[in-house]
Amino acid sequence: MKKELRVMPAVFPMPVLMVGTYDEDGTVDVMNAAWGQICGMDKITLCLTESHKTVKNLKKTGAFTVALADAAHLKEADFFGIASGNDDPEKFKKSGLTAVKSGKVNAPVITEFPVVMECELIELTPYGVVGKIVGVAADEAVLDETGKIDVEKAGIILFDQFKAGYYIIGEKVGQAWNAGKELMK
Amino acid sequence: MKKELRVMPAVFPMPVLMVGTYDEDGTVDVMNAAWGQICGMDKITLCLTESHKTVKNLKKTGAFTVALADAAHLKEADFFGIASGNDDPEKFKKSGLTAVKSGKVNAPVITEFPVVMECELIELTPYGVVGKIVGVAADEAVLDETGKIDVEKAGIILFDQFKAGYYIIGEKVGQAWNAGKELMK
Repeated sequence: MKKELRVMPAVFPMPVLMVGTYDEDGTVDVMNAAWGQICGMDKITLCLTESHKTVKNLKKTGAFTVALADAAHLKEADFFGIASGNDDPEKFKKSGLTAVKSGKVNAPVITEFPVVMECELIELTPYGVVGKIVGVAADEAVLDETGKIDVEKAGIILFDQFKAGYYIIGEKVGQAWNAGKELMK
Repeated sequence: MKKELRVMPAVFPMPVLMVGTYDEDGTVDVMNAAWGQICGMDKITLCLTESHKTVKNLKKTGAFTVALADAAHLKEADFFGIASGNDDPEKFKKSGLTAVKSGKVNAPVITEFPVVMECELIELTPYGVVGKIVGVAADEAVLDETGKIDVEKAGIILFDQFKAGYYIIGEKVGQAWNAGKELMK
């Protein structure tokens, strides 16, 4: 018997998305977004309200990047969720991180985060921003010997909204499309 | 300098969502969905194509549940991603798990998964299913002394699509809205 709780967001824990944009002057803004997912293999949806500086920026530039925050830059990732680019145009500068322009879209790639998706804006829907992933890049240090992104090397952090904790990934406990094979009859 | 990779879904790792529905005869179906997220605090979006038995079912019933898979039921969770309710109406029965009807929506609550969201269908969009969360319930065993869901007790599994591994959560490395405070000036 389950206990009824109040209505709340209960998809957890989630990776911590770092959404990078330029404003009209080319100033970098980065926000920390809790809710984003892949759709159809080459699209990404971010549930963001229009009040975010990020949304104002990407409506003008038609582009954004989504990086994954790692434990080595937890402090900066959290800061990107506390400060607002609406209030402080120096937000990114204060983080101490650095950025270069994406070679594929008009948006900044943050140097320090290990994995990034470069995205073109498709549309804004009532459920948020939809982008097409046109490039993916990663630091060599987080790739395995076959060139695949290695989840353990990447040090990606996960956010638990119930107690607002950041976690790293733990033990591997199974292999997909294999663990459940014995139930196929 | 980052290495360019091919375009791929690079939001990872993600919780493993167990989407429960009834068909027109009241038969339970459960699928394993990689891509789902919260939107606007009381909504959930699932990027599912219309070919899924789940989507056919929820179009008829107007409801679904979303549970989070835990390590104790990894085998069954993986099986729900291998078998298809389109091919096998006995899919859920074969899993050995049990279900009761939600008290809030016309969809099954799987007994064994520790946390569930009970959802009413809002609409199908080009980017998937949108539902309103009308109830959340959890096993007492995964609540802490204040009644909050405890991410460590819950044993939620995470999916890494690059190497198809399932992981449990690891060490807590920081507190949100606190870790980055020192950068606020």
